[in-house]
This record gives sequence, structure tokens and C-alpha cells, in this order.
Amino acid sequence: MRQISIAIMGFGNVGQALATLLLKKQDILKKEYDLELLVTGIFTKNHGTAINSGGVNLARALEYVNQGISMSNLSEDNRVFSPEKFINDSSAEIFVECTPLNPFDGEPALSYNRIALNRGKHVVTANKGPVVYGHNELTKLANDRKKGFFFESAVMDGAPIFSLFRETLPAIDLIGFTGILNSCTNYLLDLMNTGSSLDEAIIQAQKIGITESDPSADIDGWDAAIKVAALVTVIMGIPLTPHQVDRQGIREITSEMIETAKQNNEKWKLVCSAKRQGNRLLEAFVQPQKVNIESQLYHINGTSSFVQFKTDVLPGLGILENDPGPITTAYGMLSDIISITDKFNVLR
Amino acid sequence: MRQISIAIMGFGNVGQALATLLLKKQDILKKEYDLELLVTGIFTKNHGTAINSGGVNLARALEYVNQGISMSNLSEDNRVFSPEKFINDSSAEIFVECTPLNPFDGEPALSYNRIALNRGKHVVTANKGPVVYGHNELTKLANDRKKGFFFESAVMDGAPIFSLFRETLPAIDLIGFTGILNSCTNYLLDLMNTGSSLDEAIIQAQKIGITESDPSADIDGWDAAIKVAALVTVIMGIPLTPHQVDRQGIREITSEMIETAKQNNEKWKLVCSAKRQGNRLLEAFVQPQKVNIESQLYHINGTSSFVQFKTDVLPGLGILENDPGPITTAYGMLSDIISITDKFNVLR
Repeated sequence: MRQISIAIMGFGNVGQALATLLLKKQDILKKEYDLELLVTGIFTKNHGTAINSGGVNLARALEYVNQGISMSNLSEDNRVFSPEKFINDSSAEIFVECTPLNPFDGEPALSYNRIALNRGKHVVTANKGPVVYGHNELTKLANDRKKGFFFESAVMDGAPIFSLFRETLPAIDLIGFTGILNSCTNYLLDLMNTGSSLDEAIIQAQKIGITESDPSADIDGWDAAIKVAALVTVIMGIPLTPHQVDRQGIREITSEMIETAKQNNEKWKLVCSAKRQGNRLLEAFVQPQKVNIESQLYHINGTSSFVQFKTDVLPGLGILENDPGPITTAYGMLSDIISITDKFNVLR
Repeated sequence: MRQISIAIMGFGNVGQALATLLLKKQDILKKEYDLELLVTGIFTKNHGTAINSGGVNLARALEYVNQGISMSNLSEDNRVFSPEKFINDSSAEIFVECTPLNPFDGEPALSYNRIALNRGKHVVTANKGPVVYGHNELTKLANDRKKGFFFESAVMDGAPIFSLFRETLPAIDLIGFTGILNSCTNYLLDLMNTGSSLDEAIIQAQKIGITESDPSADIDGWDAAIKVAALVTVIMGIPLTPHQVDRQGIREITSEMIETAKQNNEKWKLVCSAKRQGNRLLEAFVQPQKVNIESQLYHINGTSSFVQFKTDVLPGLGILENDPGPITTAYGMLSDIISITDKFNVLR
């Protein structure tokens, strides 16, 4: 049995979903992968830190965090940890980062990932920040140390996008992509299509937890632009920051515009797109566009996402993700963890 | 530079597209994969056999086959080869099989693949026959010899389906799938939707080369049933033959049925589907169904294909392939070849 240790930083929705998934999948990991994943540390922002070299009790950790009980009750080490100290002192082989996105410079997650790689750990993150602001640096760090830096969940949750290109599409020439990558605005536009105003739709989206109390990162297209930047940077190999994406959000879309489109069998969608020729980026944008009923994008409803890749050998390869949730994001991280244990032959 | 030798059996549309693609990708394979793929043998049904340990000239082979000139003009070995002798005598590390599908028992392709594996070669095939009639046997043979048996192009051409599950979706529980997997019938139903009769549509499909002079394998749902059987066998891990798929073709679909559906904003589609619970197959069918405008399937046009997977962690993961051609199928084979060279560390 391969026993591999993991440190989890951040224990919000995604961190908790990962713990839930690790519990759910432990039998199949043992049976089919000869693998035991041991969480030896959990760092939370508001509920203390648990360190346990024999494995933190995950069922208990989930209970405690929901009841507001400190993680330190599960810890064999009762010191108070800073994030940096948590990473530096951890003996875990894989550092899993689930802290919130900072869309403007990726910090402090970027630094956390850097420290972990410098400490010789593999890094798995669901956070787009370190990807768009540090991909090349962190990838080089990882390669130099023969470690993995994986981030499947950064775009379209657990649907395989980065691993699709890394593992299944060798020697392909990616010419461009078009898609709907921000589920919040897609949900808002759907609600507006059934008669809500933008403000009413935002309240509803906040109610079901798919946007923040300040929804501007979604509404103004920042989240979508970050995803475009991540795809261009990683799978096109052309470094691009979100600020360099030609970005327009949905704030200017009025109920009248929605209604007029509807009468023409069209819908407004927040479209993400990029095109390249060789190493030259021809365009990269986030923009509300009217799409007609013949377009695949017309039929991407609610919180679903879709991206269609144009390549030299596959004229159109589309990936559709319906109804994702935190467990979907957690699955992307688990698949990264398993890939790392396979590729790097990690043994405790 | 890793130099790896390949024998190609069958040099019709797909074999020729593979040769074309190998020529097109030789620079990127050298540059990014440190890999030279050397075709040391081509067996054709009607144009002789070329054997050349230094590499058959592919540009010339493509010219010759189009001009009806025998491959033996490119050969250093002028003996006449039977298929079996071609495989047995070949020194190639990877055997690439591109012979036509026999939907009823997979022969003789199944035997060719078996011989090649027994001879210690890796096998890549685009042929569904050996997959549905020999998957478990051939996979065991391959595993015992630490060789690869890959067949990405057997379903949805070069779109990653088998490699998607093998490489990017570890420890996932696949609950079911639904899709449109036979592009010929999808094209026929599209034509009927714009007023053609089935017979007129068949003539048009034959004209553009997407069905055989005897179109019954498509029309009667055999091709689709074979794809369902391949998916159930491989990614669900439940052996299933095409004969065990609940199969109904489109022969009974009349222009009147098409018209009535149209008036209700519906289309007839040949739907492929399977569901499982653990190791138990609950259903596996190919069936014409009316789908309404809200369904993803409604919008899969022409020769495009689509499949949506339902899993425990990704509620809906859809793969869409638009406008495939022979080069798309060839790409699936190339990606298999590259995967084999990576996974098995093949060196000449």
C-alpha cells in the first residue's frame, strides 16, 4: 500500500468537499490504486490548525468546522501556525491549496504555492490566481525539483481541461477556443431571460451561493477573463494576465436588450474566446454576445459551462459541464493528486 | 532521439490519413517529443506490401497508392506477404491496424491484433471489431507482455474518450451515458428534416462517402450498437457484444414522423445510451427518439457526434465532436502511438 501525505490549506466549501470526497473514495483508492491518502495537516483561516502525522480524522474535522469547534482539538501539535509556518513545517508530500481567489494579483495563494514548491512538495490548487500570475514561474520551480504543479479545477471545476491537453491531445495545434466559462453570469442572464432585472437576478444568485456579496468579479467579467488568461497561458503556451484580456461584463445588458434578442430567437451570453497563430495571440476576449438558436452556446443553461476547442486535427472538440458543485471542484483536485502519485511515483 | 518503428496494416482512407499526419507532425514530434516514428512496413490489400527497415518513404507511398502503383516498388523485400506473415516477420515495435470493420465477429482484424500482441508488439487500432469482440482477451495479452493495446479512434474518431477515462478521470464512478454516436444516421435524419426521403438521403450520404454501398450497418443501428458495446465493455468494465445491445435503427422513420416532430419543435435522433449500477448493466440501447429543442442532442447536426457521461462527481460531462474526417481518426491513432511511447518507454 502506498501511503501519501497531504496538507490542506483552506477549509471552506472546496476544502470541505475535498475532505468529504477523500472519505468517500478511500476504499476505491485502496482497491484500484493501492493508495492511501493521509491528510496530515489542515490549516483553516478561522478554525485553527490540525496537524497529525498519523492522519487527521476527516469525519471529525468536517463535524468540527460545521459546529465552529477549533481544529486544534484534532491536532497533536498545539502551536499557533502562520500560513507560511504551516507549509514550511509540514512533512506532507502534496500541498493542496484551497484558499480564496484574489483576482488582481493572485496573492497570498501565489506565495503559498511558491513556498510549498521550494520546500520540495508537489502542489495541487483549485485557485486560478497562482495559475494566471505565476504559471511559468511555478511550473519551472516544479520541473526543476521534479515535482508536480497541477490545477485542473481552476477552469470548469473538475471537468478535464488541463489534463485533457496534457494527457490526451499530444502534438496538437490549438488554434482557438470559444465558450461560456463563468457560470454566475450565465445563470444571471438566464434569470433575466425569464423576466428578472439584473439586480433581482443578483440577489437570487447570492441566495444560492454562486456569487459573492460583492458580485463585481463575476458581473464585470473578471472571473471569465481570469479563465481566458489561464487557458491562453497554459494550453496555448502564451503568458497572458487577466488585465490583457479584452474584457466587457454584463452590467450594460438591459431587460430591453434581452427582450429584443428573445424576439429574434437569440440570447445574450457572456462569451469567452481566444485565437492564436503559432506563438502569436490574435485575440482574447470576454464579451456579451447575442447567440442564435443554432449555436451550441444558446443551449448552455444555468450554471453549466462549455468550451469548444478548434485544433488542426479535430475541427471542433467541445467539453460541456452540467450542474457542477463543490464536489466537482474537489474531484478535479483529487484527480490531480492521483495523477501526481502516478507520474512522480510518490512513496511515503 | 528515440526512433520507434511502426507497421501499418491497411492503407485505405484511414491508413493514408495516418501517413499524411505522420509526415505533417514529424517536426513537432522531433522537437517536442524527441521522437522519430519510422514506418517500416505497409501492408495493403490490393497494392502490395512495402517493407523497409530504414523507413518506407511515406510521401511516395501516398503517391503510389493513389496512382495504383504497387507498394512493392518501395520495398527492400520483394516476397509476397500474407497478413499473418507480414505481422510475424515485422520487426516493428508498434503494429497499427487500419483494416475494415467486420461488425459481426470482428475478424480477421481480431486475429491480426492477437498475433501482433503475441509477437510482443504494441497494438493501435481504429477498428471497433477487435474492441467489442476481443477487448478483455487482448488487454490481458497486452498486460501480460507489458505492451499497450490502444484504440482511441474506435469511438468518436480522434476525440478523447477512452484516453479521457484512462488518463483524466481516475477513481470515477460512471453511472451512464447518452449520445449520438453514428454520424451517418445523424446526417440522414438531418436531410430528412429538410424534406428528403430516407432513400434520397442515403444516396446523398453515399455520394459524400459517409456510408457504404450497403448502408445497412448504419441504418439498422449496428455501427451505433458496436460503439455502445465498446463503451460499456471498456469504460464501464462490463463485457457486452453488439448483439446484446437493445438495437433499433432508423428504417421505420417516415417523412410523416419527421414532419409531425418538426411541428412540435422536435427532431428524431438515433440515441445511444447505457446505464449501470455497480457491476450490473441496467440498460444499453440504440433507439430512434424524438428530442425537443431543450435537449443538447437536438443541436448535434450533420456528421457531428456527442456523448454525455453521468458520473458520481461530475453530474454531466459532455464531449462534442464537430465535422470529423479521416485526419481526425488518424489523430486518435497518433495520440495512441505517442501515449504508448511515453507509457512503455519504447526505445528502438
